[in-house]
Amino acid sequence: MTFSRPAVVGAGLIGGSVALRLRAQGLDVVVVDPDPATLEAAAAAGLRTAEVVPADRDVVVLAAPLHVIVRALAAVAADAPDAVIVDVGSVKGTVRDAVVAQGLEARWVGAHPMAGTELSGFAHADAGLLVGASWGVTRGDGPVADVVRWLVDVFAATVVVLDADAHDRSVALVSHAPHVLANALLEVVETAGDPAAAQLAAGSFRDGTRVAGRDPLRTRNMLADNAAALGPVLDDLVALLQRYRRDLDDPVALAERLARVTTAADVVRRPEPAWQAAADLDAALAAPGVLLVRAGPTGLETSR
Amino acid sequence: MTFSRPAVVGAGLIGGSVALRLRAQGLDVVVVDPDPATLEAAAAAGLRTAEVVPADRDVVVLAAPLHVIVRALAAVAADAPDAVIVDVGSVKGTVRDAVVAQGLEARWVGAHPMAGTELSGFAHADAGLLVGASWGVTRGDGPVADVVRWLVDVFAATVVVLDADAHDRSVALVSHAPHVLANALLEVVETAGDPAAAQLAAGSFRDGTRVAGRDPLRTRNMLADNAAALGPVLDDLVALLQRYRRDLDDPVALAERLARVTTAADVVRRPEPAWQAAADLDAALAAPGVLLVRAGPTGLETSR
Repeated sequence: MTFSRPAVVGAGLIGGSVALRLRAQGLDVVVVDPDPATLEAAAAAGLRTAEVVPADRDVVVLAAPLHVIVRALAAVAADAPDAVIVDVGSVKGTVRDAVVAQGLEARWVGAHPMAGTELSGFAHADAGLLVGASWGVTRGDGPVADVVRWLVDVFAATVVVLDADAHDRSVALVSHAPHVLANALLEVVETAGDPAAAQLAAGSFRDGTRVAGRDPLRTRNMLADNAAALGPVLDDLVALLQRYRRDLDDPVALAERLARVTTAADVVRRPEPAWQAAADLDAALAAPGVLLVRAGPTGLETSR
Repeated sequence: MTFSRPAVVGAGLIGGSVALRLRAQGLDVVVVDPDPATLEAAAAAGLRTAEVVPADRDVVVLAAPLHVIVRALAAVAADAPDAVIVDVGSVKGTVRDAVVAQGLEARWVGAHPMAGTELSGFAHADAGLLVGASWGVTRGDGPVADVVRWLVDVFAATVVVLDADAHDRSVALVSHAPHVLANALLEVVETAGDPAAAQLAAGSFRDGTRVAGRDPLRTRNMLADNAAALGPVLDDLVALLQRYRRDLDDPVALAERLARVTTAADVVRRPEPAWQAAADLDAALAAPGVLLVRAGPTGLETSR
């Protein structure tokens, strides 16, 4: 393991799941959380807890709302002076800016596990929640290769290495926009006040609203924190829905549009990278662009 | 059973699933389909097939695209002169209009099983697909009570009885709008041409696009056939997304909106009707408004 003495700051759904996985992998993990009840729950689950990050930690996983991450950076950096700081927030540009402003570039790597549930809090944390997921990891001056190896080792991650701003644009598309659509759909149905609608709702409505109406502050933070990247995506969606609206009266155009989506679906849903053995991870990371990393049968594999 | 000699016209995903369930329930079902390959597949699955609806049928389930249903009404009515005609199309106003124009009101009941998959065709038909689903059933001059009893008996249906136009407004909200959103989301991501996005996509994108990019003609028909009801819903969604767009810079408004959705979620997702024994189904059906019907432990139950 690249890191063997981790701390996790913030033991909600994601931080708690990270901590439980680290312990399950045999690592000496310490959990820090400002909420006494959360700390108590973590201790009851057998996790070692502390009020502040112990000085001997070699990595600190920051798993808190973005505004908390940004404010906690300096204290965490001071409390564990030798630790690499890995935040797992859903937006990276803001964290990168705060890290740079505080001169912590060489100690920080941004990471974002693309997993979760519509639930929140340590009570729903699960050692398996993040295992096998895709993780976005930001390129930068920190020890990116070490963090990538650690995530692959600990979480069987498929890591997507990219610039912080590119990350934020990507997750606006595949995570934040879906959350807006889900909430908007639920609100439109509720506003219609149509009792039969709820009784007739089936799979497309259930799936289309699964992430809606959950933990509003968490969702609010996620959307507002990524406003710069999400705004243009919402503009595109509005334009496209207006197009659908017009094409309801133009069956040929509507069929053409839906047929194009059918073709696109395979490209978007099942991208198959060309994996190859990672002869030199550092060299691969040094090149610009998106780099994928995963564990292959004989070691790390990469693909662009 | 209210009906014991059914025919199913159109053996795609839905019609095939209806036919397989009817046979599994021991009914003497005949399958009619214009496509020889489909008929052959149905026969290979052990179903009795025919070129036209036999004259002895007491019910004909019409499971075809809407424009085919509308054109097939007259022939089916003539071929099986004693049969009740039950179409299972996803839009009811258009069928009702065609039925009235052809003077078939007394023989027709519209039904719409709220189940399905993103797949299509007889190859994916399944005797269990429609069992336990909600079924919309249209109020009208046909033998509504008989059809409701039959659907409850055969499919363990929870039946939602309502006017054809009310049905179309409800499914625009909970079925057709979700299909538009799913396709729009998939198209926006594909158009962005962002290779990292697909690699980072997880649950919210997968669920939000599950019904997208499938059988474009089926989806086109479903949306265009219900344009009158779907258009205003799309207008509402556009207005709401524009509101989200503005509120990205207004965290308080965004949090308030999302909190309202949280409150709405329970109402919309888990409506709990007050069920009661159906002393007189015909009388209950005679009253206007939405009526729910299901099988209870001691017989039919209804609820408004």
